[in-house]
Amino acid sequence: MIEDKNQQRTSLSQLGEFGLIDHLTQNFKIVQPSTLKGIGDDAAVLDFKDKKVVVSTDLLIEGVHFDLAYMPLKHLGYKAVVVNLSDICAMNAKPTQITVSVAVSNRFPLEALEELFEGITLAADGFKVDVIGGDTTSSQKGLIISITAIGEADADEIVYRDGAGDTDLLVVTGDVGSAYMGLKVLEREKQVFMVNPNSQPDLDLYAYLVERQLKPEARTDVRTLFHALELKPTSMIDISDGLSSEIIHLCKSSKVGCNLYEDKLPIDPQLINVCEEFNIDSTTVAINGGEDYELLFTIKMTDFDKIKANPHFTIIGHMTQESEGIHLITRANTKIELRARGWDALQEE
Amino acid sequence: MIEDKNQQRTSLSQLGEFGLIDHLTQNFKIVQPSTLKGIGDDAAVLDFKDKKVVVSTDLLIEGVHFDLAYMPLKHLGYKAVVVNLSDICAMNAKPTQITVSVAVSNRFPLEALEELFEGITLAADGFKVDVIGGDTTSSQKGLIISITAIGEADADEIVYRDGAGDTDLLVVTGDVGSAYMGLKVLEREKQVFMVNPNSQPDLDLYAYLVERQLKPEARTDVRTLFHALELKPTSMIDISDGLSSEIIHLCKSSKVGCNLYEDKLPIDPQLINVCEEFNIDSTTVAINGGEDYELLFTIKMTDFDKIKANPHFTIIGHMTQESEGIHLITRANTKIELRARGWDALQEE
Repeated sequence: MIEDKNQQRTSLSQLGEFGLIDHLTQNFKIVQPSTLKGIGDDAAVLDFKDKKVVVSTDLLIEGVHFDLAYMPLKHLGYKAVVVNLSDICAMNAKPTQITVSVAVSNRFPLEALEELFEGITLAADGFKVDVIGGDTTSSQKGLIISITAIGEADADEIVYRDGAGDTDLLVVTGDVGSAYMGLKVLEREKQVFMVNPNSQPDLDLYAYLVERQLKPEARTDVRTLFHALELKPTSMIDISDGLSSEIIHLCKSSKVGCNLYEDKLPIDPQLINVCEEFNIDSTTVAINGGEDYELLFTIKMTDFDKIKANPHFTIIGHMTQESEGIHLITRANTKIELRARGWDALQEE
Repeated sequence: MIEDKNQQRTSLSQLGEFGLIDHLTQNFKIVQPSTLKGIGDDAAVLDFKDKKVVVSTDLLIEGVHFDLAYMPLKHLGYKAVVVNLSDICAMNAKPTQITVSVAVSNRFPLEALEELFEGITLAADGFKVDVIGGDTTSSQKGLIISITAIGEADADEIVYRDGAGDTDLLVVTGDVGSAYMGLKVLEREKQVFMVNPNSQPDLDLYAYLVERQLKPEARTDVRTLFHALELKPTSMIDISDGLSSEIIHLCKSSKVGCNLYEDKLPIDPQLINVCEEFNIDSTTVAINGGEDYELLFTIKMTDFDKIKANPHFTIIGHMTQESEGIHLITRANTKIELRARGWDALQEE
């Protein structure tokens, strides 16, 4: 869509590197009290006072992590920020700042970069994080986005992956699998479009799934919920690679086992319908599909009352002794070893 | 050189994404007291107590910022770290942590990535910074490195670009222009090699220049020097794009003018010899050549005694009122307006 000949195209070289950075970063506002100096010097300057600082980073590559054929640039900018903020949320910290580096080949006009930065700005504004630095340069091929997210938390708030006890309950926020099926729907529409470029996709039936893929949200609200419930998870991770993969990470870090119950998995009704249409097992999608950016955490059994009947949380299993292994308990009550089959970025080209 | 058929080649897909990250990050040690948790969770956790935090980020792209034909991977890893630490030094802060993200196409075997990480580890160890996070993924083309550097400083130590007064002295560390001529020498050798692959380059005459290009150092020592001299610059920037470009940045941020004196430029004798051989004006190289990673700063005139005769520092000019403009005063005592002609990353492909 960025090849549309009717739209305005301004060559990036017309602006030059510094002109481009000035142009793209002019809309960023500083709202966090911890940001003393944002963009405009050799480095940003931050002041966290007595808070601990949490840092995470991600690299997104066109053709590997996203396909511009069905990912509009504005959504991509938004999602790139969300993916990183989600890691900060997974530490039970509050995201406060990000740096954004972008490399593009010259097939991208200025207007395309503006769309990307519109999405970045929307996410930064929405989640109240300051864009405090970055780098804009040319690439040999495609679009590359690198984001580092910074957050703050009190020392006793921070939740690691390795604190799960062997009798803890396993809990997930929101629902799982929808983002993956959203991608499958978009991939199918791309195939249809390649055969018949005049076809107009009707995505109404898939609206929720597509939105989960194109516009995921970082669960910055969960930290606030925990505060209100006076609840601190014993371990936590975000779901980027898929539920099974993340459960295995938690178990290995915490040296515990786990029983995950198929009948407890929070699956959206739309996902069930579309899985039938695609003839795919919805449990497989819920367990292995990634990019949900929900939070997976464990709590002490004694905290059960704090979360029961809370619509944000679903108890999907419980931890066990390490020697018992990591299993899915099916609806038919059979026990299957859980394996990570999530997305792996380093398959042979 | 990474295409040498005799060496061991392990395909990246044999390890998988998590195996690769574990393998590459196993040598990183934590030495900074501010690092509470490094690699291994959703995010790193840092504690800067009452210090301010300084953050900078850079993206390096093969074919744009480096050429693997003459940049060995180990040197590239080292330089990628140095480039980022230099930005922290330019704030008069102490570098403490970095995150390192790398994307590679599958033409790179594991051994190539190991070489790259050897250079990264060497720099991290040498400059005592902790590698606290990162991302390793595949690229569609070439090698991409994204580094975020973090540093700490007391509030009253931090030096910005905008503090230069109109009677301040302009000072530079080390010498300028050598890294650029080192690149020219390497580019010439690449041409020779392409014509005759059996030719062996004799780089003895160019050793210093080539080292400045392939193994620049971050001036982490300058902060210590300032402490010992009880000196605080009024403004500071590091020289990545070229002296003229950085002087203009300082002047514009500080709203002052500048007179730069040609006869004061610190130029290494080897640079002068090689400029004659290449028939290039050494002043042009000293002013416009980038990648020196030296520090450019201004001090109050009253601090002159603190730095005079110090071999680390050269006074190369003085600031003026903004209305007087930014000029080079030549040996012949003519006044030429200084323009930024440094490297620009966004030229038309």
